[in-house]
Amino acid sequence: MRIALDAMGTDSRPLSDIAGGVLAANEFGDTIVLVGDQRQIEAELKNHAINSGKVEILHAPVDIAMDAKPTEVVKSVTSSIYVALDAVKKGEVDAFVTMGNTGAVHAIATLKTLRRIPGVKRPVLSALFPVNNHQMIFLDVGANPDVKPEWVTQFAVMGSIYAQLVLDYHKPRIALLSNGAEDTKGNLLTREAADLMRRSKMNFVGNVEPVQLMTSVADVVVMDGFVGNIVLKMFEATAHYVATLIRQEFRNDVLSMLGGALARPAFNRIRRQVDTSEIGGAPLLGVNGVVIIGHGQNSAIGIKNAIQQARTAVRENVIGAIRSGIAHEAQ
Amino acid sequence: MRIALDAMGTDSRPLSDIAGGVLAANEFGDTIVLVGDQRQIEAELKNHAINSGKVEILHAPVDIAMDAKPTEVVKSVTSSIYVALDAVKKGEVDAFVTMGNTGAVHAIATLKTLRRIPGVKRPVLSALFPVNNHQMIFLDVGANPDVKPEWVTQFAVMGSIYAQLVLDYHKPRIALLSNGAEDTKGNLLTREAADLMRRSKMNFVGNVEPVQLMTSVADVVVMDGFVGNIVLKMFEATAHYVATLIRQEFRNDVLSMLGGALARPAFNRIRRQVDTSEIGGAPLLGVNGVVIIGHGQNSAIGIKNAIQQARTAVRENVIGAIRSGIAHEAQ
Repeated sequence: MRIALDAMGTDSRPLSDIAGGVLAANEFGDTIVLVGDQRQIEAELKNHAINSGKVEILHAPVDIAMDAKPTEVVKSVTSSIYVALDAVKKGEVDAFVTMGNTGAVHAIATLKTLRRIPGVKRPVLSALFPVNNHQMIFLDVGANPDVKPEWVTQFAVMGSIYAQLVLDYHKPRIALLSNGAEDTKGNLLTREAADLMRRSKMNFVGNVEPVQLMTSVADVVVMDGFVGNIVLKMFEATAHYVATLIRQEFRNDVLSMLGGALARPAFNRIRRQVDTSEIGGAPLLGVNGVVIIGHGQNSAIGIKNAIQQARTAVRENVIGAIRSGIAHEAQ
Repeated sequence: MRIALDAMGTDSRPLSDIAGGVLAANEFGDTIVLVGDQRQIEAELKNHAINSGKVEILHAPVDIAMDAKPTEVVKSVTSSIYVALDAVKKGEVDAFVTMGNTGAVHAIATLKTLRRIPGVKRPVLSALFPVNNHQMIFLDVGANPDVKPEWVTQFAVMGSIYAQLVLDYHKPRIALLSNGAEDTKGNLLTREAADLMRRSKMNFVGNVEPVQLMTSVADVVVMDGFVGNIVLKMFEATAHYVATLIRQEFRNDVLSMLGGALARPAFNRIRRQVDTSEIGGAPLLGVNGVVIIGHGQNSAIGIKNAIQQARTAVRENVIGAIRSGIAHEAQ
């Protein structure tokens, strides 16, 4: 298998990206195609030993900044994201993995290169939400701030296929995020989307509210991209805020400080449980190709895990399954 | 001053409600009118000593369940919520404080008793969000799941008046919750609402995203009632989830357990910082009367604090200020 990896994705690009790519080549024995500035990649590769698999370079001189606007970046055909997605489109590689600018990946994939799978209303960004040692897939988490009810049901179809084939859930349970679990709660969008899903053949388990996101009542949770983005950010911001309070309080008296020191291993285990940086990434679904996008803060291990997800998605033919799932839904 | 207090509001009604009412009477020297079933209230009052102020009873036999539907409850004119709001309307009391069913209070106040202040598009539910030893007022947190941009700007007007007069902020900073701080982020609603506020004379400081809610960049944060409700619940659910992880991890090894025991005072201080049960409540704004609604889990101290807020709102004539603020805005 050949996986294109954006060498210019993480905040520490190209360091973590290349380290993650080499890790994946060595562990999986696949060919990792590093996409980015050839000279920078060559220089950094000297610090790594490739024992298995293969590492190639695909030159792309332009590096898209994390805060660049999607409307601007789609114009450049020599960015690492553009070049890599074009390679997926041409079949030169089997999938693309990046820790870069999510909006740019979404725009270039949808408007310029891979384009939508026939019948897909809108491609959708997902995120894996890890609680209780169980991963839920959330979608949309940012691609579509304003959506229609029919789009939400398609998010559910695509998320469910991914959850089944890549996350290995049997008959994934689909839920709709709302402001209350009762059917009467919600806004116009969620009430209509819930109606559509209830009347479909989907394994729809109903509305969930935030407290239920912390349990394992569902495998796929759908929402509009505005709410999804805010919900993810609220989780991260709150967890970080509570952690900051703990650190501050532990400085306040000697016993607390000692207590904090003794409990450090426990805190490290907790951090790993709310930390998303080892999950790697999550798919952009609905485009004609496997695309996995992760956080810019990902470590080499996170990147390797994202590549692992891409490999599974290719092996299980997620794109083919979505193509038939959407065609079947349209009938 | 005479404040009506719902005796049937909290989850432990009428116990905490009455304890809070007596606490307020003794501390503030005001008259607290307990609204609810006369016999139950009389029986419970025997367990309390009233040293200052006065406690009266206003009989209301029907108790509205926490999960009762607003469309049903508006029909009963003998519920504690209906009787109390009617007393505010008739001028028999100066304000109403309740820990009861928020949807019921909103519906009965808006449709049956107090009704809207002239010019107010939609009354709005608020919440006080306590981070960094600074209270932000959030609105809407649930009354209006689907809103128009002009409503959001009115939420800002009303929230700002309350923040100035009751929370004592000079020139409150108004922000709009969005999925990113940049002007280009948002959905159709927030982009239009931001435009309106930017062109107004309001002290609008721009978009904020969740991470900024944990700092003190604004005093009033506006959003639609669907998002606001989810954001509050996400904060509570995440803080609770992290606390649960900590408890679980502290049982995993002896050192962590010892560390946790030593750090207990620090944890208690943290709990108080993320706990909203001593804040008391927050106003329903836009109706013709002072109404403060709090959590059903409130303690007696929380209820006393909610009554304190109601007293300040009456003393500062918040209703008059909103009436002229809205009239002025309409010009």
